[in-house]
This record gives sequence, C-alpha cells and structure tokens, in this order.
Amino acid sequence: MTAAPARRGRPGYDLESLLLVAVKLFNERGYDGTSMEDLSRKLGITKSAIYHHVPSKQELLRLAVDRALDGLFGVVAEVEAQDGRAIDRLESLVRGSVSVLVAQLPFVTLLLRVRGNTKVERAALARRREFDRIVTELVAKAEAEGDVRADVDPAVTSRLLFGLVNSLIEWYRPGRGSTGTELADAVCKIAFDGLRLSPQ
Amino acid sequence: MTAAPARRGRPGYDLESLLLVAVKLFNERGYDGTSMEDLSRKLGITKSAIYHHVPSKQELLRLAVDRALDGLFGVVAEVEAQDGRAIDRLESLVRGSVSVLVAQLPFVTLLLRVRGNTKVERAALARRREFDRIVTELVAKAEAEGDVRADVDPAVTSRLLFGLVNSLIEWYRPGRGSTGTELADAVCKIAFDGLRLSPQ
Repeated sequence: MTAAPARRGRPGYDLESLLLVAVKLFNERGYDGTSMEDLSRKLGITKSAIYHHVPSKQELLRLAVDRALDGLFGVVAEVEAQDGRAIDRLESLVRGSVSVLVAQLPFVTLLLRVRGNTKVERAALARRREFDRIVTELVAKAEAEGDVRADVDPAVTSRLLFGLVNSLIEWYRPGRGSTGTELADAVCKIAFDGLRLSPQ
Repeated sequence: MTAAPARRGRPGYDLESLLLVAVKLFNERGYDGTSMEDLSRKLGITKSAIYHHVPSKQELLRLAVDRALDGLFGVVAEVEAQDGRAIDRLESLVRGSVSVLVAQLPFVTLLLRVRGNTKVERAALARRREFDRIVTELVAKAEAEGDVRADVDPAVTSRLLFGLVNSLIEWYRPGRGSTGTELADAVCKIAFDGLRLSPQ
C-alpha cells in the first residue's frame, strides 16, 4: 500500500481528485468491501481530512453514480428535444450513451455494478429503470413507425441494445485502440444494421 | 442467516448441491468476500463437513468456472466440426453460447466476474482469452469470405458480439419471460441482421 504521489505542488486533495481515487477503489474492491480506512490509506491522508470534503462513504457513492446518471439523462434530454423519426432518436441515444461511458468510464462502471443495498444504491437503480423505460418506449415507437424489426419484443431489444453498450466497460480502456467516436460507430453499425453483409 | 432447508430426506449435501450454494454466495458477495466460514453458516453444516467434499475454497471456484468453460469449449468443438461458411459457424457459436449461459447461469456469471487474483482465476482468464481468440478468427474468416462487414475491426466485432451475449447475465432469469431458444433467436437477429427494418 503506497501513499498517493504528490499532486503537482498541491498539499492535498480537492473533492474531485478524492472522488476519482474513491471510485477507482470501489471498482476494484466493491463498494461494500471498501472502508473509509482503506480510502484514507490509499490517499495517504487521515480520515478526518476526508471528512473535511465529504460527510460519508455513501455521499462519495452518491456523487459518483449521479455523475454517470446526470450524463446519461443529459443525453435523454437532448434526444427528447429532437424532431424526426424514433429510430434516429434511438441511434442518437446510443451514440450519446457511448460518449458518456467513454468520458466517465469509472463512474459508469460503478453505476452498472450497483446492487441496491443502500438508499443511494436504490435511488440509482430507480433512475436506471427510468432510463430503461425511456429506451423501451423509443424502441416501441420506432417499431410502430415501421423502422425497427417487430419480431423481437421491444423490452428485449432495448435490453440487448444497452447490454451491448454497457458491455464496453468490460474491455474498453481510453487511449488504447478505438476512440469514443469509432466505438460509437461500431456499436451502431452492428446494433442497427447487423454484422452480416447482405448480398448486393 | 438461516440454515439451508432439509433436502428431500437427505441428511446433508453432496458435492453438486454444495457447489451450487457456494457459487450463489460467490456471485452475491464476491469470491474474495466469501469465507469458508460464511459458506458453512449458509449451508448449516460445519467447515469440516465441507472439507469432506472439497479441499479448499479455491477448488470450489475451479469446479465452478470449469463447468462454464467446459460448456463453452464443448460448443467450440461442435462448431469446429461443422463444414460450411464461417458466418454460419459463428452463428452456431453464438447460439450454443447462449444455451450454455442459460443452462449454467450462475457458473457463467461467476466466470465473467473472475478478476485474476489467484492461480485458478488466472487459468480461467487464459481460457477466456483462448475463446475470444477463436471468435475473432471466425469473424475474420467470415469477413474474408465476404459475409461479415469489413468496416469494423474483427477484434472489435467479436468483443461486441460476445459483449451482447454476456450482457444476458445482467438481466436474464430462467423461468421468467423468454426461453433460451427465444433469447438465442433475439440475440442472433439483432447481432447478425440488426434491429433496423430495411425498406422492402
């Protein structure tokens, strides 16, 4: 266990840099498996120095999952302001979600692992369900408009579509291989048009 | 913490039923976060009764992840014995993998959460990488045969394809909603042909 390296002349952490270390630790060991003691050791500062920034471990979790959820619901708001066909809004929602995932990878990873043992986790799960409901409605609308295949249940289609998006957290690492835009293109090509090349 | 219910007149557990309880507990609390003491309490039997069946916690993990991996490599062996086009073998591999996931859900879930902290975990990760390599080769072959889109890197396509399959562990629960075959159909329709309905 080594202390965090000195941060460019600053004597300690601000809330943002403290949050980043906490989220990394939660992702490695699980939220339940990480104590404020573990965090203080990792940061190389006392617990009371942490409490100067944030009142509890649960508040760190809340800040982290809200970062991810606010990003995703920001995309929802943009998409809901769009005119045009539902399938195009659905594609915008997928692209925007991939962008949020790439930009906020540790926060989205933590969000997707939340299990619902605390009030903060249950609130996060409720917002995730609301997001899923919005996706399913958009898939159903696109199906009603004749743009999405009707031989798969819209709830299953939306779960598979965002299962595909969310699976990126398992292997995508920023700075290695594809950029966020290339990744969003690949996801949309495969999800919307399939990997089969139709005979010309 | 309640003792396990009496099992149809049998006085205790055999290795199989013990393994099922262990895997459920590992999935709930994490492998690292589960002690033999926790398992003994959950089973309502002593630790020495557990050691009568299995020498260590790590051996329980090995049995569990090998169950999942043997299932997946069984599908690989079947697919490699098939003649015909690579894209059809790829589709068989996806269908077979969904079947294994549905039939062995707790074991596959555990396998997909393995992080590599122990010898058993590192061996499981090595077999997973071998599986991924086989998928990527099959995608590349199907691309060379002109059946799979060439505008996405085969390694990315194979990661997305199995990201989609593996995402089922997050929401699929046997006996609720779709059967395994319906699920495999939905996955193949979306992955191979896309959710967009092309204009006739």
